[in-house]
Amino acid sequence: MPNPDFAHPLTIRLHDTDAAGVLFYGHLFRHTQDAYEAFMAAIGMPLDGLIRDGCWLPLVHAEADYLIPMRHGDRFGVEVAVAALGESSYSISYGFRDGAGALRARARTVHVHLGPDRTGSAPLPEGLRSALVATLGTQ
Amino acid sequence: MPNPDFAHPLTIRLHDTDAAGVLFYGHLFRHTQDAYEAFMAAIGMPLDGLIRDGCWLPLVHAEADYLIPMRHGDRFGVEVAVAALGESSYSISYGFRDGAGALRARARTVHVHLGPDRTGSAPLPEGLRSALVATLGTQ
Amino acid sequence: MPNPDFAHPLTIRLHDTDAAGVLFYGHLFRHTQDAYEAFMAAIGMPLDGLIRDGCWLPLVHAEADYLIPMRHGDRFGVEVAVAALGESSYSISYGFRDGAGALRARARTVHVHLGPDRTGSAPLPEGLRSALVATLGTQ
Amino acid sequence: MPNPDFAHPLTIRLHDTDAAGVLFYGHLFRHTQDAYEAFMAAIGMPLDGLIRDGCWLPLVHAEADYLIPMRHGDRFGVEVAVAALGESSYSISYGFRDGAGALRARARTVHVHLGPDRTGSAPLPEGLRSALVATLGTQ
Repeated sequence: MPNPDFAHPLTIRLHDTDAAGVLFYGHLFRHTQDAYEAFMAAIGMPLDGLIRDGCWLPLVHAEADYLIPMRHGDRFGVEVAVAALGESSYSISYGFRDGAGALRARARTVHVHLGPDRTGSAPLPEGLRSALVATLGTQ
Repeated sequence: MPNPDFAHPLTIRLHDTDAAGVLFYGHLFRHTQDAYEAFMAAIGMPLDGLIRDGCWLPLVHAEADYLIPMRHGDRFGVEVAVAALGESSYSISYGFRDGAGALRARARTVHVHLGPDRTGSAPLPEGLRSALVATLGTQ
Repeated sequence: MPNPDFAHPLTIRLHDTDAAGVLFYGHLFRHTQDAYEAFMAAIGMPLDGLIRDGCWLPLVHAEADYLIPMRHGDRFGVEVAVAALGESSYSISYGFRDGAGALRARARTVHVHLGPDRTGSAPLPEGLRSALVATLGTQ
Repeated sequence: MPNPDFAHPLTIRLHDTDAAGVLFYGHLFRHTQDAYEAFMAAIGMPLDGLIRDGCWLPLVHAEADYLIPMRHGDRFGVEVAVAALGESSYSISYGFRDGAGALRARARTVHVHLGPDRTGSAPLPEGLRSALVATLGTQ
């Protein structure tokens, strides 16, 4: 993930952790979504607006690597970048970087644009594509 | 809560707990919902069906008392009962009883039936009212 | 809740909502916790530090009123205030106020200080009491 | 995933869905954990017992593919199997199969055994290894 310009702030709260004392792995995927929504809003494509306009972009894949435990009170910048851009889909990468600059976790999500009948994929709307492409130039 | 006939099984999982070693209080309200949905299905009023039929029953109040800590691996029967029944609303009570018979937490939710325009309350549909009333006789 | 000086920002994300199109009631209690932890940090009593120092303050009660539906993309200031302060417990109130100034939900949590053996309540530590008292003067 | 003998029941509840009307992707990872814990208990290695005994098995990777949308009220058997078994780590696979036999989602988690100092990996305890190996013969 090449030093992205966008980072969303995150503080690990008590409900993010479990009785083993560290972040429960599944909870990371709320924070990827928070960072993704903030990123989309920042590039002029707020997700709630897209959904209201009938633009459906469901996930078909999500994954994460947990590199260094994340604990209650830890603070992060969640770096977000467009990792791949296809005809009807795109991939977003996430890096959870702590105050000391260490990457503590990383994640990736793949989103597909559904056509109006929502049964198959369809080319990304031009405005969305342009906004995603524009972020590539900044990296 | 007078010894209800309906109890939904629950095992506390790692993601229910937090770094303090016990259930995080907010997570209890997933389990009230699980038990409520199982209860509604058991009385012939599955919630997903009601919502699909346009019957909206949003919560206007929720509360819980945490009596004895709940830990990873603990098992419960979540007792569900109709606590109150009004013209356009009803209240559900929940008791989290462990294997030794101790009540470790209790909760209550209040549900209001919205009319077709969803801006104000409306009398409960007759079928739903009958199903809820029928449970009162069993207690 | 008398116009508190502390408000924590919140944007409703997709995972906060459910298929009925509005906030799922249980998810509100992650946001009460986020706002509570931000409040405690702001008054010099960060919760992760208290827990690390062996100061246990479990909840014994939580409740919420849902006044106006909260939807994906909605933004709030979560107002936090000390609502009551006892010998060994305190109560926190939360108001979810939208950009138009409307109170869309409110909540309350009750916290008890446990003694070193964690089986019964104990007087609040003096530093914590002072920090909570100091917030009362600002309202 | 070769027709595993173990399947954990799951009903999609309202809090599993989002305003787009389908399961929110991150919530799938509570259900992988529920199924994993039920699987571990079934093979005589309950996770809460392992943690209490100081056996730490944190995740280093998680991933999921979302094949067919999962909706409120849908019922699944979550099939669980040991997908790989190493010296100090193992991988678990999950298949979310609906009543019609269709695989609607699949997932995989990788778990590493930490040594007593919790800073590096250590060989799996013999009892745990044997229990995991025994499941391979049943597939």
